[in-house]
Amino acid sequence: MSKQFFYERYVAFSDTDAMGVVHHANYLRFCEEARVAWMRATNLTKIHYPVSENVLAVLHHQVWHLKPARFEDLVRVELQVRSQRLKIQFQYVMFIGTERIAEAETLHIPLNKNLRPVRHAPELLNQMEKESWTETWLSNS
Amino acid sequence: MSKQFFYERYVAFSDTDAMGVVHHANYLRFCEEARVAWMRATNLTKIHYPVSENVLAVLHHQVWHLKPARFEDLVRVELQVRSQRLKIQFQYVMFIGTERIAEAETLHIPLNKNLRPVRHAPELLNQMEKESWTETWLSNS
Amino acid sequence: MSKQFFYERYVAFSDTDAMGVVHHANYLRFCEEARVAWMRATNLTKIHYPVSENVLAVLHHQVWHLKPARFEDLVRVELQVRSQRLKIQFQYVMFIGTERIAEAETLHIPLNKNLRPVRHAPELLNQMEKESWTETWLSNS
Amino acid sequence: MSKQFFYERYVAFSDTDAMGVVHHANYLRFCEEARVAWMRATNLTKIHYPVSENVLAVLHHQVWHLKPARFEDLVRVELQVRSQRLKIQFQYVMFIGTERIAEAETLHIPLNKNLRPVRHAPELLNQMEKESWTETWLSNS
Repeated sequence: MSKQFFYERYVAFSDTDAMGVVHHANYLRFCEEARVAWMRATNLTKIHYPVSENVLAVLHHQVWHLKPARFEDLVRVELQVRSQRLKIQFQYVMFIGTERIAEAETLHIPLNKNLRPVRHAPELLNQMEKESWTETWLSNS
Repeated sequence: MSKQFFYERYVAFSDTDAMGVVHHANYLRFCEEARVAWMRATNLTKIHYPVSENVLAVLHHQVWHLKPARFEDLVRVELQVRSQRLKIQFQYVMFIGTERIAEAETLHIPLNKNLRPVRHAPELLNQMEKESWTETWLSNS
Repeated sequence: MSKQFFYERYVAFSDTDAMGVVHHANYLRFCEEARVAWMRATNLTKIHYPVSENVLAVLHHQVWHLKPARFEDLVRVELQVRSQRLKIQFQYVMFIGTERIAEAETLHIPLNKNLRPVRHAPELLNQMEKESWTETWLSNS
Repeated sequence: MSKQFFYERYVAFSDTDAMGVVHHANYLRFCEEARVAWMRATNLTKIHYPVSENVLAVLHHQVWHLKPARFEDLVRVELQVRSQRLKIQFQYVMFIGTERIAEAETLHIPLNKNLRPVRHAPELLNQMEKESWTETWLSNS
């Protein structure tokens, strides 16, 4: 059994909207925070802006909403990651307690500060070899 | 030739991030603003919160990023919409001038204030019959 | 009677929070949008990023909340502006219809792309001479 | 010497703008998160939405910006709080390392779900008696 990387944070009041739940666009901020936490945990922040001049730009993203999240809910974001040729793909499952509230997917390419595509940093490719990927991890994919 | 509904607005400084471009999550706000502008133009705001107690909640959303957008760019969002049984699907193409910068898709269901599914308002179903849909409108779908 | 500059826009759903009203931090986005609209109207966007490399950075801001604003309210932001030595001060009064819902104030200095202070552009100083200022315009000041 | 309450979090990429620094409006989200963390630490979340129907609505807020903050900076928010008759006043000092980057102040009143003023919860008043306040804590006040 693999240890899934996860990131946790409370839903902020500013994350909510007039439906009383987290606004759908803010799930992408949860994903971004989880992605950066993963880079921190795997010692990869050094290959990314601001330490490096390169960024992992977002080409595509999608989110499936299963259950609402409310102010002060503790959201746990689990993620998995793999490389696909020049692209990096992340998948996310979000939980409140044991309940699956959302799933998401983001696709990235490395760009330099002029927004031109660059090669992957060797450290990122090395890390990719250590990561496991489960095809059927998302219930919606 | 059909008249595509569109919504236009300038990129705000607060929409940008440290890459100097619009943060990816903010494209969903552009889509939402376009959707609401469409409801205003088709006289459908009356079936939605706050006039009604119901909302068109977001079940799924995805965005494809083609070109970056910067502060003060004038973004034009075109949209098409159709009903799929109990769901409403919107597709969006975003332009700066004549350049296609992003495409997006959102899927909705009507919920009441307790977040329970409800039937579509008759006015929405009537409007759906007037809307045209082009299967191949998005280049990525 | 002076012609006060104003900027109008609808409250977006993403502007609201779980109280059902516009989240307090978003009033600063309304002010920023009004400020940029004023720069556009006075032909000053050319002295600001991205046309120029300089920005009008925010040193201080404050907002007084008088009445709530809700989704789909049309908010009108009036502003006045003056220079104070090296600083530029804006004041804002926000209305829904004829009702005053908020007042705000922001203080700015011009910075270059390395975030170093620079002199004001002559075009900005010229414009400042045309602007009128009413000391008692804000009810809270 | 009193133990100042503090809250820490990394600057997210979505917090930044095209100047490469945290957008000024986002400091209010840092303050809100610190305020909620303080309520959690003092066992006061029970007097606030969503456990209670009441909220501590924001009447006024201001922020003084001293130094910029960038993506991945660890921001430490210290706060102090006191009651002023029917209002609650918070002050915040924000640090990166030992460097003071911003100061802020927010003023609140308790409102019920219909946005009508209500009395302070006894638990909040009890907590206020335990809090210390330093008049000269903010360098700008």
